[in-house]
Amino acid sequence: MAKAGGSSKSGTGKSGASKVYNAFYAQSGGVTAVINASAAGVLETARKYPKKIGKVFAGRDGIIGALYENLIDTSADSKEAIAGLKATPGGAFGSCRYKLKSPDQHRAEYERLLEVFGAHDIRYFFYNGGNDSMDTANKIARFAAEHGYPLTCIGIPKTVDNDLPITDNCPGFGSVAKYVAVSIREAGLDVASMSTSSTKIFVLEVMGRHAGWIAAAGGLASEKAGQPPHIILFPEVPFDRDAFLARVDNCVKQYGYCTVVVSEGVKNPEGKFLAEAGTKDAFGHSQLGGVAPVIAQLVKDSLGYKYHYAVADYLQRAARHIASKTDVEQAYAVGKAAVEFAVKGHNAVMPVIVRKKGAKYAWEIGMANLGDIANVERKMPANFISPDGFHITPACRKYLRPLIQGEAYPPYANGLPQYVLLKNKAVKRRLPEWTPG
Amino acid sequence: MAKAGGSSKSGTGKSGASKVYNAFYAQSGGVTAVINASAAGVLETARKYPKKIGKVFAGRDGIIGALYENLIDTSADSKEAIAGLKATPGGAFGSCRYKLKSPDQHRAEYERLLEVFGAHDIRYFFYNGGNDSMDTANKIARFAAEHGYPLTCIGIPKTVDNDLPITDNCPGFGSVAKYVAVSIREAGLDVASMSTSSTKIFVLEVMGRHAGWIAAAGGLASEKAGQPPHIILFPEVPFDRDAFLARVDNCVKQYGYCTVVVSEGVKNPEGKFLAEAGTKDAFGHSQLGGVAPVIAQLVKDSLGYKYHYAVADYLQRAARHIASKTDVEQAYAVGKAAVEFAVKGHNAVMPVIVRKKGAKYAWEIGMANLGDIANVERKMPANFISPDGFHITPACRKYLRPLIQGEAYPPYANGLPQYVLLKNKAVKRRLPEWTPG
Repeated sequence: MAKAGGSSKSGTGKSGASKVYNAFYAQSGGVTAVINASAAGVLETARKYPKKIGKVFAGRDGIIGALYENLIDTSADSKEAIAGLKATPGGAFGSCRYKLKSPDQHRAEYERLLEVFGAHDIRYFFYNGGNDSMDTANKIARFAAEHGYPLTCIGIPKTVDNDLPITDNCPGFGSVAKYVAVSIREAGLDVASMSTSSTKIFVLEVMGRHAGWIAAAGGLASEKAGQPPHIILFPEVPFDRDAFLARVDNCVKQYGYCTVVVSEGVKNPEGKFLAEAGTKDAFGHSQLGGVAPVIAQLVKDSLGYKYHYAVADYLQRAARHIASKTDVEQAYAVGKAAVEFAVKGHNAVMPVIVRKKGAKYAWEIGMANLGDIANVERKMPANFISPDGFHITPACRKYLRPLIQGEAYPPYANGLPQYVLLKNKAVKRRLPEWTPG
Repeated sequence: MAKAGGSSKSGTGKSGASKVYNAFYAQSGGVTAVINASAAGVLETARKYPKKIGKVFAGRDGIIGALYENLIDTSADSKEAIAGLKATPGGAFGSCRYKLKSPDQHRAEYERLLEVFGAHDIRYFFYNGGNDSMDTANKIARFAAEHGYPLTCIGIPKTVDNDLPITDNCPGFGSVAKYVAVSIREAGLDVASMSTSSTKIFVLEVMGRHAGWIAAAGGLASEKAGQPPHIILFPEVPFDRDAFLARVDNCVKQYGYCTVVVSEGVKNPEGKFLAEAGTKDAFGHSQLGGVAPVIAQLVKDSLGYKYHYAVADYLQRAARHIASKTDVEQAYAVGKAAVEFAVKGHNAVMPVIVRKKGAKYAWEIGMANLGDIANVERKMPANFISPDGFHITPACRKYLRPLIQGEAYPPYANGLPQYVLLKNKAVKRRLPEWTPG
């Protein structure tokens, strides 16, 4: 078995004389149904450039893996296993919620990264994440340049929140969008069946603490007036209790039932999360549920209707079984493009998805500077939310619809999807143990 | 357009001279992802016996539709629409939670049913439901016989709870089982990715107020030691707080995270629902969430681990997009068999699913008397729950595994499943309005 790093193919130790260098790939933040498709794009493409890229080391649990020199040798995994990543949700190498501070605040972390990269002949850095990660990648690129370390830093977009700027949409979002739209359509048929003598209200809670993109996607299920969801509650629209209840009551009177998709981040007019506003009883006990039970109970208390509610939570962002084919393809494409950008000599950039002009949806890969992505949060445009604040507009449908197109079913055996687990072969450490400063 | 009922093909009014009579079909109780497949089995098969069965009238919202003479003329729907029911969740004609009392207690309801059946030349009654419905069908069969009304009553099994006796399993269950197993496998991969620096505990709440069949199905996702779900909580096993917490802690220490599938019906040793035990604060305010947040918060308070939880609710029983092919086929088969039993002259019976002997799973349709089904509830056998009470046994796996086999994807357009909506053409009333006595 080849020794991890330092093999003939993977550079020549610290001399830097060879033109073949290793790469480091890390997943960051909340995972998605398709982040592993981006990993597959990186790994398969890197293997096509053996004269430039040696091994691809993945970070065990994201960037933390680099700091603690917990590297994974992806060359231990077969072509078939890597291909299987395209149909596997979650993060194949683990992810983390960990944001590097700025070099001014925590210089030791940046120095450590370069030390680890140096020890393993790493000169390519691929960082697969959202806003924070693009900021981090950008800072690392600058720090490396300032310190004379030749590092190519490429960001790879990923977030179910769909809140990165410049790119038309974010890999990971299309699949959550499809899951939510399918789920509310199905649950809506259930409630409609039961409403005469039983449940009249159904509330589905979805992710989205700051932006309503995911809740908006639920609106795609409603293609004609009266179809579920009847009401969407966005974080962008302060919750108007009376208007909401009037709308629910009208809906029940007109259709016999009412279905609601609610963003976890909905706030009251004072700017407090609804889920939080209801969290404390008189003794200060915290409330256990999310926003769905708060909304459902409000309807029950005010209008008397029987309710059910669901909280999709991780199911929505892990639901590879009903992923959007468009999303899977785009996630793969940004991984592939990241490697291509790197071997072409670009640095501190991120592949973006560009929507082409024309009536029929088509997309291509473009390029953005990390500095233009970092820390910019894209909210729903005002013209995507209907004037009454309770649904999406035709412009929003036009934007969202292509993103959920196509099914990309994983393989099944024994009635269950066959998701791959990689070997996660540890790379031998070359440095003393690190203690954060 | 043919006039509803009383057409040349559908008997000759009240004389009863013809041998062609109409049929009444009703869906009852909570709907499933495949109850409409049973409807398709009934409707398509009935159309094959035009010399015996005239029109099939469906009850608008189940048996309530018969009492109030709200009948639907299914002959208005095309062959294609009826076939589409095989891939459509929910109840195509509506369902209800309404149990007829015994004829001694509420004779007027039974008399009314026969009056409506008589007015529309109905001599076949197909009742698609669970325990209560089979009891009702049986009572109606007896009442009709005692009153000289020639009515053929056939039950059609349906329940996600899988708690009917005699039949090897219940249509509707296999699809919920598949949904739960797929979902916990997917969410498990998500949690595993995040556990080092973030969420360590994930709790999925599933249906099952009295029997743990659905929670047990989650266990299928765990094919090797250490795979999610790590713990299953059954209504059959009194909740042992200390043993549970010890198990969670061991699991986190061994695997880095812990996933739990919990039945909504889990009870404490005093026999109170856990969800209820936590429901009241000092002011008697009712608690809004279900059992998942109670379990998750208990872990957080006792062990300090960060958690997420999901409540699947209606999503699980409406999830036609990931239905079990076996379940869809069996649901259709019991609908088909019901009509075949009827035209062969059987009465007060229900088709059951019989598991054939042999190593390879195979099934066929059998027949049971309604009297033997009614009001008997089948719980999980003791040998299906592992000795520690936290997982399923190999015997349980062997029973469950075939039921989730195969995928039966619905057709898609615009990225969403295309579920059919029938015309629901109302049959003209022939009787004065009814007021319950």
